Amino acid sequence: MNILVAQSGGPTAAINATIAGVIEEAQNYKKIKNVYGALNGIEGVINKNLVSFDEIDIELLFKTPSSALGSCRYKLPTDLDNEIYPKIISYLKEKDIRCFIYVGGNDSMDTVLKLSNYCKKNKIEDISIIGAPKTIDNDLMGTDHCPGFGSAAKYVATTFLELEKDCSVYNQPSLTLVEVMGRNSGWLIAASALSKLNGGEGPSLIYLCEEPFKEDRFLEDVGEKLTEGKPVLVALSEGLKDLTGKYIGGSESEKTDNFGHVNSAGAGKYLENLVKKEMDVKVRSIELNIMQRCSGHITSKRDLDESKMLGQEALKLALENKSGRMVGLKRLTNIPYQVEVINTSIQEIANLEKKVPLKWISSSKNYVEKELINYIKPLIEGEVEVDYENGIPKYFSLKKY
Amino acid sequence: MNILVAQSGGPTAAINATIAGVIEEAQNYKKIKNVYGALNGIEGVINKNLVSFDEIDIELLFKTPSSALGSCRYKLPTDLDNEIYPKIISYLKEKDIRCFIYVGGNDSMDTVLKLSNYCKKNKIEDISIIGAPKTIDNDLMGTDHCPGFGSAAKYVATTFLELEKDCSVYNQPSLTLVEVMGRNSGWLIAASALSKLNGGEGPSLIYLCEEPFKEDRFLEDVGEKLTEGKPVLVALSEGLKDLTGKYIGGSESEKTDNFGHVNSAGAGKYLENLVKKEMDVKVRSIELNIMQRCSGHITSKRDLDESKMLGQEALKLALENKSGRMVGLKRLTNIPYQVEVINTSIQEIANLEKKVPLKWISSSKNYVEKELINYIKPLIEGEVEVDYENGIPKYFSLKKY
Repeated sequence: MNILVAQSGGPTAAINATIAGVIEEAQNYKKIKNVYGALNGIEGVINKNLVSFDEIDIELLFKTPSSALGSCRYKLPTDLDNEIYPKIISYLKEKDIRCFIYVGGNDSMDTVLKLSNYCKKNKIEDISIIGAPKTIDNDLMGTDHCPGFGSAAKYVATTFLELEKDCSVYNQPSLTLVEVMGRNSGWLIAASALSKLNGGEGPSLIYLCEEPFKEDRFLEDVGEKLTEGKPVLVALSEGLKDLTGKYIGGSESEKTDNFGHVNSAGAGKYLENLVKKEMDVKVRSIELNIMQRCSGHITSKRDLDESKMLGQEALKLALENKSGRMVGLKRLTNIPYQVEVINTSIQEIANLEKKVPLKWISSSKNYVEKELINYIKPLIEGEVEVDYENGIPKYFSLKKY
Repeated sequence: MNILVAQSGGPTAAINATIAGVIEEAQNYKKIKNVYGALNGIEGVINKNLVSFDEIDIELLFKTPSSALGSCRYKLPTDLDNEIYPKIISYLKEKDIRCFIYVGGNDSMDTVLKLSNYCKKNKIEDISIIGAPKTIDNDLMGTDHCPGFGSAAKYVATTFLELEKDCSVYNQPSLTLVEVMGRNSGWLIAASALSKLNGGEGPSLIYLCEEPFKEDRFLEDVGEKLTEGKPVLVALSEGLKDLTGKYIGGSESEKTDNFGHVNSAGAGKYLENLVKKEMDVKVRSIELNIMQRCSGHITSKRDLDESKMLGQEALKLALENKSGRMVGLKRLTNIPYQVEVINTSIQEIANLEKKVPLKWISSSKNYVEKELINYIKPLIEGEVEVDYENGIPKYFSLKKY
């Protein structure tokens, strides 16, 4: 028998670690002949575009950011009678693939759900479809936290620490607005508060997208902080919405992708312009942009280790024929940090979003509570040694094989 | 006798290493009682705002990004008969300061020039004013390269490597425009080409600001690259100007600072909008922003070591009473990399800018020549071990002392 892995959705610094876990675990089973990878997610299955992982450097793959197999945003049809399903299944059978592990976020779990539902409906019992979580947004149900989040959070916390150092060199009031990823959940932006763990001040204000954003309140908050006469650093979620649910700064170029997501034009730039209009202060906005998810040169060891472990556990689950489930983590204790591996029916997970509990946002709605910092802290701990060559990191690339 | 150090201009990841060099070197001389630091550059001297470096963690200061002493953009008056000059000098005398080492870029060397000219004019021979270079722009005359540049270049090269990995996950044409710092010189953006040193493809197109930027030619270049059907990564200088010398994307909010610099509104965003209007392709722009200069978690060991050495050499020069000079480096050979320390009269340096030689820009004006890559390569080599605590770097902070 053979097994298949694929990656989908936005890349992260940890998604290859999960693939590395699957490949490594597969070596423990004599019955597994080949581990195949589908290029560009489910599209690689539909287009019969597979690669084989022979003689690859698993350790280098483990710490290489972005999706080594490529990704896709392809959405399987809702109608399970669509001709694409038998086409996919017959190709898997042709390649003797009995386990298909799909690594991704919410949209990828939708793919796992539909494929496993199709198999169930058609009594196909010799192919096991398993989901492995990944998203820097940390918004998947069925797991305490998501692979990729810890590394992105470490990047965000470190970058806010460094931005604060940079912003504070001039002895005069100024305003720096930093936009952090997270369309519908504020987990990642909350990590900005962790920049103060070693004695720094961190951002003065943090606006999560779970609370409706009020412009007048924001101007008041900022004005108050500026009275201290010092540079003010503010963390803004890219997903900020007003009371009517409209994205802040999103009106100019609102477009929707295949999954119905709205691409915001930028809360940071919009609010920078608002401040320029309303206040007399030097202001600039910074987008942390995709560096948040692809900075393999600074990753959380705990994140990468857990991501790999979940790859291993996903394969174990697939071999137990537990199709239609996603592996995840349950946190047992914070100090010492302890988790156990769990798995949940995809039915209960797909197309849902886990948001930051409102009780973890300060009552002033412009900062986070200690509980949220405590939740994130263990996830950014530990460093992964980067292999440098010629002054830049050495990363895995499929092309070499 | 006492000595004084101060920092000015935009911070870098290496500017504290120079201060560390001055402090460490001072310990070799019994005649030096105190090393003072002026807070916020020359403003700290004018406002009598000094700190003393007793019992500080030099090793931590060495690898801490941003200016530990703060910075300023204060421009000394051109008129040497201005009352501010005797005020500064009498304060230095009051504190028995015989050596004043000013670490900074072009504008800071202007301060060194004026102060040393004032001393010369007024026959003040017991105070030595020495410049130590620092700028991620790498545009100072009198030195082969500038402290801070190597670390910023390492960040840029690494980030382009990681952005390329991220951009290439979807199997469809797309355009990612990345704006890199460098208002008047293209040294830093050229470092984007070093992202291919370990086998990656790097950016397809690199536009330095030394060449006039033509929008129609840009659209042609991009269109040609897009015909390959793959994601295209483009490096754009923030300092791109058209044939008339007008900043690309700078018209909206052109403002000038105290030194007459124009703050560009953003070539990346402007060209993103141009592409949206003119071409049918998914396009986005990314600004590497101040992360380029403050990312202390990824620095070049060679850069930090040289920055420190130049601090040591600056003090030696000051003690030799060579006022009005800047320390610098002369490159002897590329392979093996060898430099020697030199010093140059500030008169020959201040208010000049060293640009990338046009022969190091490809004749197509959209890439760099091998010579430029060879020039930058040794400067990004070597890694500095970061001290992590709680998952984020531990950095030096003056407040603790």
